[in-house]
Amino acid sequence: MSGNDRPEGQPTQTSHAVAGAAADKTSSPFLRACRREPVPHTPVWFMRQAGRSLPEYRKVREDIAMLDSCMRPDLVAEITLQPVRRHKVDAAIYFSDIVVPLKAIGVDLDIKPGVGPVVEKPIRTRADLERLRPLDPEDVSYVTEAVGILTRELGATPLIGFAGAPFTLASYLVEGGPSKNHERTKALMYGDPELWADLLDRLADITAAFLKVQIEAGANAVQLFDSWVGALAPDDYRRSVQPASRKVFGAVAGYGVPRIHFGVGTGELLGLMGEAGADVVGADWRVPVDEAARRVGPGKAIQGNLDPAVLFAPREAVERQAAHILQAARGLEGHIFNLGHGVLPDTDPQALTDLVAYVHEHSAR
Amino acid sequence: MSGNDRPEGQPTQTSHAVAGAAADKTSSPFLRACRREPVPHTPVWFMRQAGRSLPEYRKVREDIAMLDSCMRPDLVAEITLQPVRRHKVDAAIYFSDIVVPLKAIGVDLDIKPGVGPVVEKPIRTRADLERLRPLDPEDVSYVTEAVGILTRELGATPLIGFAGAPFTLASYLVEGGPSKNHERTKALMYGDPELWADLLDRLADITAAFLKVQIEAGANAVQLFDSWVGALAPDDYRRSVQPASRKVFGAVAGYGVPRIHFGVGTGELLGLMGEAGADVVGADWRVPVDEAARRVGPGKAIQGNLDPAVLFAPREAVERQAAHILQAARGLEGHIFNLGHGVLPDTDPQALTDLVAYVHEHSAR
Repeated sequence: MSGNDRPEGQPTQTSHAVAGAAADKTSSPFLRACRREPVPHTPVWFMRQAGRSLPEYRKVREDIAMLDSCMRPDLVAEITLQPVRRHKVDAAIYFSDIVVPLKAIGVDLDIKPGVGPVVEKPIRTRADLERLRPLDPEDVSYVTEAVGILTRELGATPLIGFAGAPFTLASYLVEGGPSKNHERTKALMYGDPELWADLLDRLADITAAFLKVQIEAGANAVQLFDSWVGALAPDDYRRSVQPASRKVFGAVAGYGVPRIHFGVGTGELLGLMGEAGADVVGADWRVPVDEAARRVGPGKAIQGNLDPAVLFAPREAVERQAAHILQAARGLEGHIFNLGHGVLPDTDPQALTDLVAYVHEHSAR
Repeated sequence: MSGNDRPEGQPTQTSHAVAGAAADKTSSPFLRACRREPVPHTPVWFMRQAGRSLPEYRKVREDIAMLDSCMRPDLVAEITLQPVRRHKVDAAIYFSDIVVPLKAIGVDLDIKPGVGPVVEKPIRTRADLERLRPLDPEDVSYVTEAVGILTRELGATPLIGFAGAPFTLASYLVEGGPSKNHERTKALMYGDPELWADLLDRLADITAAFLKVQIEAGANAVQLFDSWVGALAPDDYRRSVQPASRKVFGAVAGYGVPRIHFGVGTGELLGLMGEAGADVVGADWRVPVDEAARRVGPGKAIQGNLDPAVLFAPREAVERQAAHILQAARGLEGHIFNLGHGVLPDTDPQALTDLVAYVHEHSAR
């Protein structure tokens, strides 16, 4: 991470290389866009770019359970690198799962194929909170090791650290698994605001500790995923969620790495999610990126927002939609091209590779 | 349906009665609110009020498949009446399923318990369109019969007719069943706009015919449910969906019954959904009702918007949230209290009964 000594607007030779140790990540298009500095081209990465859409991922995951794969540094590094090699994306995202830090502190949970995380004993009373002890870096030494490998292997390509946000973690813990309507979570949130606040506060500390481990090991940015928070109205978010998310962002502010925040269906919450302390706010496809920027306000970059379902349409249709986004982003200070949600498992990987090339070519300054 | 000859602001004796034939539905609080006229109290009904939350529903549905129950006039009438009897809601909603008109024209589909509608051969090519023949009123004579029974039994309580909107029907037909991400639907919409438009146009005609049957048999209002349309961005809605929804609303405009339009997660689309021809626009809980009214613009009533998950919280919490909604609706010309989505199956029915009483009491003029 040396200084920023190349002229602006000139792409680095190594910006997509998966090799070299002392490469200049700091002036990569991705980190420049996060800081709202001029870029040679709009950087691109995809949420869930490492995963089931890639045959090389399905191959290495064969016979290895999801949570086991998250605890093997060699496998985490390989899976994280796969989409960088294949698609030439501008950033890698640390391969993990939202529940990994909970598993690491001893919560009895598993990820069931076709279902998602299932928590043996849901958390619903004050006594249950005791099971949420603080996260010690030693609990996730495999993360430190994997990030170390990645920092070397990624060369000039930056690595984004990954964590689930307190609300989304709380929903898994309270419901006992994935939930469409979050009834029990909301019943607790509305019915016992004090217990709710204490639950989210503990989760904020765990999440912050998990992100710190990644940053201290070399992650160049972090993304806090609040997958389910779009289920809340703005007043509820402000009162019941924002304090915990703000605590997470505040805890990692001192490192100076860009902090990204995203949740699907959060059109009404974009301003509040930025306020929580994000430097970059992700928007899904329901809100055009220029309107998202207006809602988020000045001083923050915008990430997004191609509908991942569009990738199932013919190439010309994908390019037409991508062109609309680049057009809408033209006046923005900082824009990172991404999907408006994670890559869908049945996506043709070639469609993603083509999209990266299209965005690079059509945004070149 | 005699004139409106009682002084404003005075509740009718019979407004909740489930009896009497020539009762005055026209001046019911529900229809008055739809027309943005003064009301004695804010009218309340609940999407999916007839259904699995009620033990009396589970009892009559025992051993009867969903689609079979929709084709038995006696059962439809009984199920439609159950929540009116129990909760004293201000309107009944015709018990049916979104796919009933498709089944009626011979589409090979079934509703699988725990899954939803499953279409044997999905519609994906121009040749497939031939399977969508126009709906003849004779195809749904059981609807005419059931509405006839209901019109007599409901007394002064109005009956809302029910239909799924073209986009949502198209999603079931193209995907072959319920879909989280609507990949194939969107691939067709973006990839073959002409075929897409023709598909939605046929569905608009079928939907309009289905609503006409209900209105001609005596339904006092209609609600067009576009369950999944919140998956679209505004530009896509305007170009690819609004023309078909507008055709449906236009086809029933001459009857003079209020036309309600709703889809979950449609905060960005509220204005466009009103423009499509609705007299009343339903909002989910993510957008406060006063903000929803601002987006919809003048001349239309607003329906909503308590988060159905709130009903799992203690009674005081439910009442606090209901009070917020009544407060936000205070300046609106027309407001119909409802949930922001359908009643969840595990809802305690008493919570719904209590909520109706609370809204009536706390909105009495």
